[in-house]
Amino acid sequence: MIERDESSENNTKKPSKVSIIFTPSGKRGDVEYGTTILDAARQLNVDLDSVCGGRAMCGRCQVQPTFGKFAKHQITSLQSNLSPPSKAELHYGEKKSLKTGRRLGCNTQILGNTLIDVPEKSQVHRQLIRKEVEPYNIELAPQLELFSIKVQQPNMHDPSGDFERLCQSLKEQYSASFSKEHSITCSLSVLRELQKVLREGSWQVTVAVHAGHFVNGIWPEYKKAMFGLAVDVGSTTLSAQLCNLKTGEVIASAGTMNPQIRFGEDLMSRVSYLMMNPDDTINMAHEVRTAVNYLAAQTTNEIGSDPSNIMDVVLVGNPIMHHLLLGIDPTELGGAPFALATDKAINTTAEELDLYFNPSATVYILPCIAGHVGADTAAVILAYNPMSTKEMTLIIDIGTNAEIVLGNCDQVLACSCPTGPAFEGAQISCGQRAAPGAIERVRIDRQTLEPSYQIIGCEFWSKDKYFDEKAKSLGITGICGSGIIEAVAELYLAGVISPDGVIDGALKKQNDRVFLDGRTYSYRLTETISITQNDIRAIQLAKAALHASFQLLMDKIGINTVDEVILVGAFGSYIDTKYAMVLGMIPDCDLRRVKSAGNAAGTGARIALLNKHSRKEIENTVKRIEKIETAVEPMFQDHFVNAMAIPHKIAPYTKLQEIISFPDPRKSSLSNEFRRQKRRGKPR
Amino acid sequence: MIERDESSENNTKKPSKVSIIFTPSGKRGDVEYGTTILDAARQLNVDLDSVCGGRAMCGRCQVQPTFGKFAKHQITSLQSNLSPPSKAELHYGEKKSLKTGRRLGCNTQILGNTLIDVPEKSQVHRQLIRKEVEPYNIELAPQLELFSIKVQQPNMHDPSGDFERLCQSLKEQYSASFSKEHSITCSLSVLRELQKVLREGSWQVTVAVHAGHFVNGIWPEYKKAMFGLAVDVGSTTLSAQLCNLKTGEVIASAGTMNPQIRFGEDLMSRVSYLMMNPDDTINMAHEVRTAVNYLAAQTTNEIGSDPSNIMDVVLVGNPIMHHLLLGIDPTELGGAPFALATDKAINTTAEELDLYFNPSATVYILPCIAGHVGADTAAVILAYNPMSTKEMTLIIDIGTNAEIVLGNCDQVLACSCPTGPAFEGAQISCGQRAAPGAIERVRIDRQTLEPSYQIIGCEFWSKDKYFDEKAKSLGITGICGSGIIEAVAELYLAGVISPDGVIDGALKKQNDRVFLDGRTYSYRLTETISITQNDIRAIQLAKAALHASFQLLMDKIGINTVDEVILVGAFGSYIDTKYAMVLGMIPDCDLRRVKSAGNAAGTGARIALLNKHSRKEIENTVKRIEKIETAVEPMFQDHFVNAMAIPHKIAPYTKLQEIISFPDPRKSSLSNEFRRQKRRGKPR
Repeated sequence: MIERDESSENNTKKPSKVSIIFTPSGKRGDVEYGTTILDAARQLNVDLDSVCGGRAMCGRCQVQPTFGKFAKHQITSLQSNLSPPSKAELHYGEKKSLKTGRRLGCNTQILGNTLIDVPEKSQVHRQLIRKEVEPYNIELAPQLELFSIKVQQPNMHDPSGDFERLCQSLKEQYSASFSKEHSITCSLSVLRELQKVLREGSWQVTVAVHAGHFVNGIWPEYKKAMFGLAVDVGSTTLSAQLCNLKTGEVIASAGTMNPQIRFGEDLMSRVSYLMMNPDDTINMAHEVRTAVNYLAAQTTNEIGSDPSNIMDVVLVGNPIMHHLLLGIDPTELGGAPFALATDKAINTTAEELDLYFNPSATVYILPCIAGHVGADTAAVILAYNPMSTKEMTLIIDIGTNAEIVLGNCDQVLACSCPTGPAFEGAQISCGQRAAPGAIERVRIDRQTLEPSYQIIGCEFWSKDKYFDEKAKSLGITGICGSGIIEAVAELYLAGVISPDGVIDGALKKQNDRVFLDGRTYSYRLTETISITQNDIRAIQLAKAALHASFQLLMDKIGINTVDEVILVGAFGSYIDTKYAMVLGMIPDCDLRRVKSAGNAAGTGARIALLNKHSRKEIENTVKRIEKIETAVEPMFQDHFVNAMAIPHKIAPYTKLQEIISFPDPRKSSLSNEFRRQKRRGKPR
Repeated sequence: MIERDESSENNTKKPSKVSIIFTPSGKRGDVEYGTTILDAARQLNVDLDSVCGGRAMCGRCQVQPTFGKFAKHQITSLQSNLSPPSKAELHYGEKKSLKTGRRLGCNTQILGNTLIDVPEKSQVHRQLIRKEVEPYNIELAPQLELFSIKVQQPNMHDPSGDFERLCQSLKEQYSASFSKEHSITCSLSVLRELQKVLREGSWQVTVAVHAGHFVNGIWPEYKKAMFGLAVDVGSTTLSAQLCNLKTGEVIASAGTMNPQIRFGEDLMSRVSYLMMNPDDTINMAHEVRTAVNYLAAQTTNEIGSDPSNIMDVVLVGNPIMHHLLLGIDPTELGGAPFALATDKAINTTAEELDLYFNPSATVYILPCIAGHVGADTAAVILAYNPMSTKEMTLIIDIGTNAEIVLGNCDQVLACSCPTGPAFEGAQISCGQRAAPGAIERVRIDRQTLEPSYQIIGCEFWSKDKYFDEKAKSLGITGICGSGIIEAVAELYLAGVISPDGVIDGALKKQNDRVFLDGRTYSYRLTETISITQNDIRAIQLAKAALHASFQLLMDKIGINTVDEVILVGAFGSYIDTKYAMVLGMIPDCDLRRVKSAGNAAGTGARIALLNKHSRKEIENTVKRIEKIETAVEPMFQDHFVNAMAIPHKIAPYTKLQEIISFPDPRKSSLSNEFRRQKRRGKPR
């Protein structure tokens, strides 16, 4: 299909294999020298569109060769690592125009290690970035307030500064908010605009006052709206909520991939990258700040505005993202004793972080709790504070690491737990992140051992007659976190795997979906997707780590059961809690008291944005939290080993049969309503 | 001498005259099309060296064609406005190398409006930039303090942040300076360095703490020295003093021209330039900040250090320079009611002002007093506070404008006075700024009317036999401010000019130094330097404005005499006070109580740098000062008209004859000693 340039092939000794990394997926691998980018994408399961069959006609496989450095893959040069444009590609470029630097994946051969970015338009299945906004009743008391004032004009007999007369007016016209002794200051950028704006507005202006004493915005007209942005800076994705600071309303939300992925897909590879390239801290910071700027542009554009109207920002993130965002080298967080640079909340400015918002915009970053438990967890606690009740509440935030918080009004403990990425579908043979086409629900017939499943983007089960048609258009691309959990639990319930997690090879006689796969057995879910023994082990290890961690916290407090479990994060929203309990991912408790809090970190960030008192509150709460480092707890290992079995002792509260008849909470609108009520009920 | 390129002359219609502006002198004028830069410099009295007689051999006339915009002279293009390099110039360039962009003044013809910078090395008489450091006894209490501490290492059981453990150590090891409740914060740049520095220093570090609560520097070793910079940002020159913040010692000082001169020599032309080009505010700010950066580099290099060791900065300047430095459009200061953007002190950071010092360096700018009375006057008041005594003290700071402060512990008044630049030697026919070769002292023989004079850089009077030899090497280039004052006073005392300031033409018969010069008479001081009737008028107007201003303040307080006069600024140091009194530039008082305070604004800036309490002190003092706007005072005009005569009613305190027998204070070491004592005596 591709015209090879013979001359360039004769140049020098060619490697037989070359490495390629795709962003934003972070997928990487070695391919044959000379493979086209499109073929490489297919080999590596990278989502790259193509309609014309690689004939350089449709232009759907456009990619952007880019520059990046990975911990293990230093990619520094590109030009010579790709084949020069073929005639067909040049022809396409002439007729349809190709953005500078872009190449057609089907007509570009890989001749050396390279890094390829797949633009959003070239992706068939754009990554699902969860950006849902959780309803939450927040008392509006923003750090930033608008005041409309009439300022006295200057005169020769009273040569006071314009700013001093403005302060005078504030104190006179809003004496409740500003005492006479109150010292008010302002940013230099306000000072630079002040005189012009006062005259433009004929001495009637609107000012924004931060924290009751710092003027950081001035407009010559009555200002109706002012925006704040709450951002959850995750290691894989960032999500932002744009709020109207005058009404508290969420007016737009958006999500995007974390572009730092080019420095390493998971946090630890980014840290090891920085250990070797310490000077790149600022570049890493730049990447993630660019994403925040993108979200600001995205959300403000959505409502016909622009980022210059963003006046206050709240950021949360795990400790490493927190440090990277601030431009602090996170190396210390990469190894014991995991020392944070600071565990205090940060008050800074958008300018200081290169965020192109209003020049005076302020930034608040929630405090980190410990080296593994970040400002995102602080935000979760702000949203679902265990200290607000006598009931013992367990909060679990599952990502690559899981953060666990347990306590009530008397005592709160927190720890993190190295679950690894198995729950996210990574390190699973056919695993993938949640995206259309991924298997997310699985049932195994107890008698026939035949499976039934659902994929994301299709409402039908695989047994349904309409399924095939719909599935065809999406493709069944892999199995995501919730799918693998259901698969393992159902395989256990159907007797395919034993309590110690081994696939019973004898069953191959009953159904050939059980088959010998190398030295162990696997279970074939679809023609291309199987659950291997290794997959089951990965899930066992992850769930055992999780179980051991909350068990440790329960031991510390001296309890056997918890009153409420809150599952946080995207994963929490998509999991069927009964299967989580079958695997022992949550402790034995009343399943009706297991709640999903969705984007709780985002909600906490929004609370801090809209209610200034909550900032003080969470700073005080964080000080009171007892931090547990699982690695140094002698009991952790015992708990871990004990928790490998399936199911992990489900008693005395519930019986296994009771559990598996529990309705899927994701389906029940009643349950959703209940969850909403619950949240509103929490005092702020 | 210069080879003309005939072809280029035939191009288009040539103007007969072209405009040229020289920096840093700001001298400008129109010259014939085709004039060489060297010839233009000579015609306009610009100090441009040349030794080889314009043969492109010595290279001393090197100039830098540059880019700039003046209020009335928009100079936007340059390339085509100068003749291309001649063969001789190319030859010089090949043999001796000419910096990129430089031209030889002798071989470059002016073919269009242009702006030429004369580098320091090409100036025969480098401008005298007063940078003397006035001795002053300052109690050392800097805003920034260094603490050497041992910080506890992190451990897994106590996952607190490194910064929090650092604060803990500060509180434990310096409990007198930091109470337990004391909340300590730090800059982001400290946070970025923190972890590395703590480990590099094996947990023993030095920190700099600003205002008792803000950590803005950290070093892995015992830090002996830390610098502060006090800068007086004048409209013509900037001067800086580098201080050791641990000892209070002034370790280096430097001065430089204000590069904003390219936007207008005096402040009002800069303001009118900005009225037409409001977007250039930030460029103007950039120019003056560059000069501050230059002074920082200059002073720190002098002691083998660099600006990154500067941790705290105090800046003072008149209101327009204050605004321009901060990037605030000073347009409002250009017309009534002369409203300042703010009259408060400014606390900001070096980074915010693009000053390349320590990344955490803080900046303090003293408050302005009124639209015409700036932070420089506040600094003068800080150094010589009239409120510290019962005695009535008059402070006069003469520059292009004069600022006047009058008062005692009960009451202080301040005003500014539009003297114009005559006292600085500008707007005088043969006037020039103080520089080697300028006439600075003048005597006129009462009988013969023959003059005797001294020039800067030569200790002999013109009648001395050694004078000619010395003067020859310097050249007699013009008459500076103190020279013109002495000349006018002496001409009056010798009867050459009448009390109403008219040169008596009848005297031309007695000595032909008095000669008809157009429609009025002039007095010839040297072959090329004459005092014209217009010069005398300019001095009369300036001194009348000055006199009317302090008279107004004296009226307001209700006094006829003052107890002490302090003359501030470079001009104050170089003036012979008796002549100032003859002209009525100071009120009738005991001449022994007339003091020169030299660079008092610089001293005040240094006080604020070295003593944090003084910052609060001057902020409070400034609030108490009564600001007088001379323009709206009905009596000002009367006082002004009355003060035109020479001398202005010198009585009852002193008689004219007593005055003129008073020793020149600049000569008397006793007097110098007295001045020093006096200053030390002032309580801080």
